[in-house]
Amino acid sequence: MKFSISKQAFIDGLNLVTRAISTKTTIPILTGLKLDVLQNKVILTGSDADISIETTIKADDPDNMLAVESEGAIVLPARFFSDIVKKLPEKTLTIQTSENFQTEITSGQSSFTINGLDANNYPHLPEVQTNTSINLAADLFKQIISQTVIAVSNQESRPILTGVHFVISGNNLLAVATDSHRLSQRNVTLPDAVASDYDFVIPGKSLSELSKMIDDDQESVSLSVTQNQALFVVGDTLFYSRLLEGKYPDTSRLIPQEHDIELTFDSSDLLASIERASLLSHESRNNVIKLTIKSAEKKATIFGNSPDVGNVEEDLAPSKIEGNDLEISFNPDYMKDALRSFGQTTIKVDFTTALRPFTLMPTENSDSFIQLITPIRTF
Amino acid sequence: MKFSISKQAFIDGLNLVTRAISTKTTIPILTGLKLDVLQNKVILTGSDADISIETTIKADDPDNMLAVESEGAIVLPARFFSDIVKKLPEKTLTIQTSENFQTEITSGQSSFTINGLDANNYPHLPEVQTNTSINLAADLFKQIISQTVIAVSNQESRPILTGVHFVISGNNLLAVATDSHRLSQRNVTLPDAVASDYDFVIPGKSLSELSKMIDDDQESVSLSVTQNQALFVVGDTLFYSRLLEGKYPDTSRLIPQEHDIELTFDSSDLLASIERASLLSHESRNNVIKLTIKSAEKKATIFGNSPDVGNVEEDLAPSKIEGNDLEISFNPDYMKDALRSFGQTTIKVDFTTALRPFTLMPTENSDSFIQLITPIRTF
Repeated sequence: MKFSISKQAFIDGLNLVTRAISTKTTIPILTGLKLDVLQNKVILTGSDADISIETTIKADDPDNMLAVESEGAIVLPARFFSDIVKKLPEKTLTIQTSENFQTEITSGQSSFTINGLDANNYPHLPEVQTNTSINLAADLFKQIISQTVIAVSNQESRPILTGVHFVISGNNLLAVATDSHRLSQRNVTLPDAVASDYDFVIPGKSLSELSKMIDDDQESVSLSVTQNQALFVVGDTLFYSRLLEGKYPDTSRLIPQEHDIELTFDSSDLLASIERASLLSHESRNNVIKLTIKSAEKKATIFGNSPDVGNVEEDLAPSKIEGNDLEISFNPDYMKDALRSFGQTTIKVDFTTALRPFTLMPTENSDSFIQLITPIRTF
Repeated sequence: MKFSISKQAFIDGLNLVTRAISTKTTIPILTGLKLDVLQNKVILTGSDADISIETTIKADDPDNMLAVESEGAIVLPARFFSDIVKKLPEKTLTIQTSENFQTEITSGQSSFTINGLDANNYPHLPEVQTNTSINLAADLFKQIISQTVIAVSNQESRPILTGVHFVISGNNLLAVATDSHRLSQRNVTLPDAVASDYDFVIPGKSLSELSKMIDDDQESVSLSVTQNQALFVVGDTLFYSRLLEGKYPDTSRLIPQEHDIELTFDSSDLLASIERASLLSHESRNNVIKLTIKSAEKKATIFGNSPDVGNVEEDLAPSKIEGNDLEISFNPDYMKDALRSFGQTTIKVDFTTALRPFTLMPTENSDSFIQLITPIRTF
């Protein structure tokens, strides 16, 4: 195996696949990255068994300056090999393997020889048929991910809740996550109806990594799903994630259909107020802030308190207050996550009673996105 | 005590003095910052007993929007108070103390009440006479600090070596640091001769903090020294550091007066080569790289090696090689620190034998700055 390649193109590829490579794996060969050198392309692969990323650098793009002299495959220590490539002196580099998987990396006057591993021992990637795939607009898909992963559970006691539940039927895509204290649900209308229905749960961690991989110049992401794998195609890069096994709980019944109190806020203003109040609640053992609503006086006030440090009180400025009076307590960090996910917009917050979950929705297109938070009993 | 002030001016002051405040102090009141409110100014003080910083916000600068209603002093929890001020909603804030050192911070609709401490219990800052002070150009002084602190020891076994030794006599300033493996010495001619000679050692940590405080729009720094304290005046801010006790070793005899081999390099090119070689040496137990010089062939080559991972070899491109042949080994990290401190310039590296220290100097004005590195015996 011998080839020359543009340093920058190679670094871009390495940066993509090393996202999937963990130094903490129990399978030693997975700390390496695999290079497959074919006549007109180089394929880079990284995997941690949960996520696998494969990207292709093609000879037909002149920017890649790829010239393959002989084909072959090798597994190289990922972190160390990336560090070397990034420090090379010239704009191109040459990689050549010799006996015993020794690999020589040369660039200008600099010559590295490192020990590789037999690529035949690298695990095979899952096989996913891509003939029935769903196309998603890249920016919308990134938004769906960022709005739902915030509510994913990070506790392994109920593994299914560590993922985001996707239900695709007709031309509707529903994405839901809940850690049982809060829930986030996004509803999207697809441009085309899907041929068959889908119902699957992807680990939140996979989605976060995938999201980082989708940059602004990417227009669309294609998704294919099998029994236990999802495959996302982003440009010349394939992203595989295992699916979570088991049945996701029925979340539709959790969302209240009616409410007694409705407040309307600028999301950024409310976020700033909650952030101030949480400064105090974070100093206290139970991280709770209190909201009181006096509808007749059109007054909504938040309180944060820490016996050791002090307290904070702030009158909010809702553009609308309707309904009963209320005193309700909640975890300000759930509220901050929820508010950040809306961006700068006008939202309505709907309450029932002090012990029932309350919801946040955009005032426009309110069916498309809902955040639900369970209050905390303080009496 | 009651006053109003510009949030931004107050944050700038808080950012300055909180540099000196450690959460790990054994003196509880030093986790706080002291506010002294006088008729026409507010003084902020932070200290960790080694370093103290005091900055003044004056009413006569309209940007500060300072209005003092009543004088007084209070000590407030530094980190927490700073977090609150940074999150306040309006451009100004009001601070008012009441009974039992309770302090109210208001801005817009937001009102915080936090528990303060009696300012009478805050330690007094050292007294330093400033009538005989030395003026130093701010950018030059920052350069002296950055070029010497790299060689300061971080081992408490010989405390004196954790500081930078300053000797000021006539119109010459000499700054030296050594951790006994390497040495860095800077020599500067002052515009004016000093009235009396100075010889003192300032902790490297103090100098690093001080350097961060000096920003680009600062023209000069004034320095006053007593038996055990140094006081730097930077604009409206006073920076106190304790001095290290004891006699600094005589370093002048360590610097070789003659050499047998001389190489000239572009400092950035040599740095890049050393960085590549150190990738391998860092993977090995003894962090060493080897340099071989063959003067007749005009060839200088570096080698890095790690038995587990591989090796690297690179021909350097010195613009001049003169003298004997040599094979010498050294810690590449000392070399990298030294090379970075030169910036991009032409340097000469002078060797004697494989076991004698070698030196790096700029080719121009070579008396002003010298870096010395002790080689490592590998045979």
